[in-house]
Amino acid sequence: MTVYNFSAGPGVMPQQVLDQIQAEMKSFNNSGMSILEISHRSQLYTEMEQIAEQNLRDLMHVSDDYAVLFLQGGGTLQFTNIALNLTDQFHHVAYMNSGHWAQKAMEAAQKIDGLKVDWIGDPKGGLPHIQALNSDHLDYLHVTTNNTIEGTTYHQIPETIQPLVADMSSNIMAEPYDVNQFDLIYAGAQKNIGPAGMAVVIVKKSRLASHPELSQIMDYWLEEQKHSALNTPPVFCIYASGLVFQWLKQFGGVEAIYQQNQEQANLLYDYIDNSKLFNNTIPAAERSLTNIVFGTGDQQLDQQFIATAADHGLISLAGHRLVGGMRASLYNAMPTAGVHALIEQLQQFELNHGGL
Amino acid sequence: MTVYNFSAGPGVMPQQVLDQIQAEMKSFNNSGMSILEISHRSQLYTEMEQIAEQNLRDLMHVSDDYAVLFLQGGGTLQFTNIALNLTDQFHHVAYMNSGHWAQKAMEAAQKIDGLKVDWIGDPKGGLPHIQALNSDHLDYLHVTTNNTIEGTTYHQIPETIQPLVADMSSNIMAEPYDVNQFDLIYAGAQKNIGPAGMAVVIVKKSRLASHPELSQIMDYWLEEQKHSALNTPPVFCIYASGLVFQWLKQFGGVEAIYQQNQEQANLLYDYIDNSKLFNNTIPAAERSLTNIVFGTGDQQLDQQFIATAADHGLISLAGHRLVGGMRASLYNAMPTAGVHALIEQLQQFELNHGGL
Repeated sequence: MTVYNFSAGPGVMPQQVLDQIQAEMKSFNNSGMSILEISHRSQLYTEMEQIAEQNLRDLMHVSDDYAVLFLQGGGTLQFTNIALNLTDQFHHVAYMNSGHWAQKAMEAAQKIDGLKVDWIGDPKGGLPHIQALNSDHLDYLHVTTNNTIEGTTYHQIPETIQPLVADMSSNIMAEPYDVNQFDLIYAGAQKNIGPAGMAVVIVKKSRLASHPELSQIMDYWLEEQKHSALNTPPVFCIYASGLVFQWLKQFGGVEAIYQQNQEQANLLYDYIDNSKLFNNTIPAAERSLTNIVFGTGDQQLDQQFIATAADHGLISLAGHRLVGGMRASLYNAMPTAGVHALIEQLQQFELNHGGL
Repeated sequence: MTVYNFSAGPGVMPQQVLDQIQAEMKSFNNSGMSILEISHRSQLYTEMEQIAEQNLRDLMHVSDDYAVLFLQGGGTLQFTNIALNLTDQFHHVAYMNSGHWAQKAMEAAQKIDGLKVDWIGDPKGGLPHIQALNSDHLDYLHVTTNNTIEGTTYHQIPETIQPLVADMSSNIMAEPYDVNQFDLIYAGAQKNIGPAGMAVVIVKKSRLASHPELSQIMDYWLEEQKHSALNTPPVFCIYASGLVFQWLKQFGGVEAIYQQNQEQANLLYDYIDNSKLFNNTIPAAERSLTNIVFGTGDQQLDQQFIATAADHGLISLAGHRLVGGMRASLYNAMPTAGVHALIEQLQQFELNHGGL
């Protein structure tokens, strides 16, 4: 049985990448050593890391004005690190309250002594509008571009808003954003980048300053000086993510995968919109391409569908425990065949439950 | 050419573990999904994590009085976390100054506001003696059991000293320590545990208390509540480390590998002690089993040996840049054949350079 994995993260990886990891597990780059064994001070490591970084820069069109960091601690540690590293000037930040993870980011900032944290909008009323904001007094406005749990996305962000910090954990490289609009972009790796255990931070070098009062690995300036290897970096995550970047470049880059992501999401949203059993109430302009939430409105029926789908190899379709229902995460590595298989399963279930 | 990897970390992994990772890379536990793709909220993950934890508990004889945590950030983030989580009572700690990494741990503690940090000994005079210490006023005494760069070890620690915190990064599970002597033990994974990108923390539950002022992933109490999955954990590192634990249990546990580690270290130290070219000046009782430092006293000759050895597949024998010379790291996964190959190479080099 072919398995399609709709997990919101850790999520599906490209088969080509898994093939390569498997093939060279016992001898990386013909070294006779596994990637799991090589020193982070060796040339083998340094070259691998540099290629991974360059491929990420190419994919996202990241200029030399920005540092690219591969760090531990996931998005969660970055919630704190951002608020500690980027607030020297005004000690004042604002957060778009667009969902659960946006709130988590904000709550981490609220813990910082002496930092004023504003809170814009309420996700219960839909995606809060990013209005023309007087940001002269702000160290940054924080935006979560894609809300993994709620299934909503800021597909565009007004160019007039500055300085911006974006959590792109669940749609980085799934659709194009102009890096130059942001002072800092961060993302946990485990959705569109690679295995769990790493976060990518892309930060304008001009925003970095030494923070000797912090734990060394929380100081972005120092991590940039040390090329993300201040302490032993998450070597395997960087390696596997580098293979994903290579795969995505071969695919045609973010622009090409964005086409495929739109096609896949449209297939599924079209089905749901025409269904009498399943529904999604998010306005079209705000709908996520990567996390598609839907349900029958009947909790028991939802559970039944999730179990039936799993029996047919369609895995991890349960919505987040906070919202229930279903969620299909269509990250970059999801083949279109997986979306077709899901739609067939939805149709079958709808037929069996008199929805048509 | 057989390659033997003497890297101080990331270091050599057991071949059997690499075989298994390779074999099941594309379908973990017959799930049709890679270990890199499975959700950390799935039963597949939970069972894997529980088995890994139980095997570690079995190997180190860890009682239920202790929590076992698998965390991100390496030893370096734990330097800070320990000082933040375990100092509520006296705001006063002491550190044995036994080497470079001990000093790093101490410097991280010194950054904490309101924390008094004492400093015992000077590694330049040899391994500082752990004397009978009046610790009534201390939140902990910090000991680095094995000094990776200096090649020295506290093989025994007086039972009278309490409370103790130990950095065992470079000799955890390489020789037996009684966990019950310690309030907290921590170790970066990348030497004797598994791939880089994880730290293991073993902590007496009675020492844990909620720290809502901290970044959530720095709060040991909260991580214990969440079984190390407060945010997405480093799934692959936990998985691969679990396989190493399984391998070590099959080998006969810490007691059996300790025998092998002593035999291997003795082979190498005996050769060095009888050599006219190479030497090691550390007193026998303080010598490390895992990191064996030696040199010719001639920097150029050392470099020549390191290069020659690498040509023969003996990799990463350079000493740390702070001390120079050579270092052979004989972690648990080093086969005895690797030690013999190294000694042969040393003999050959000594012959060629008139040392005999």
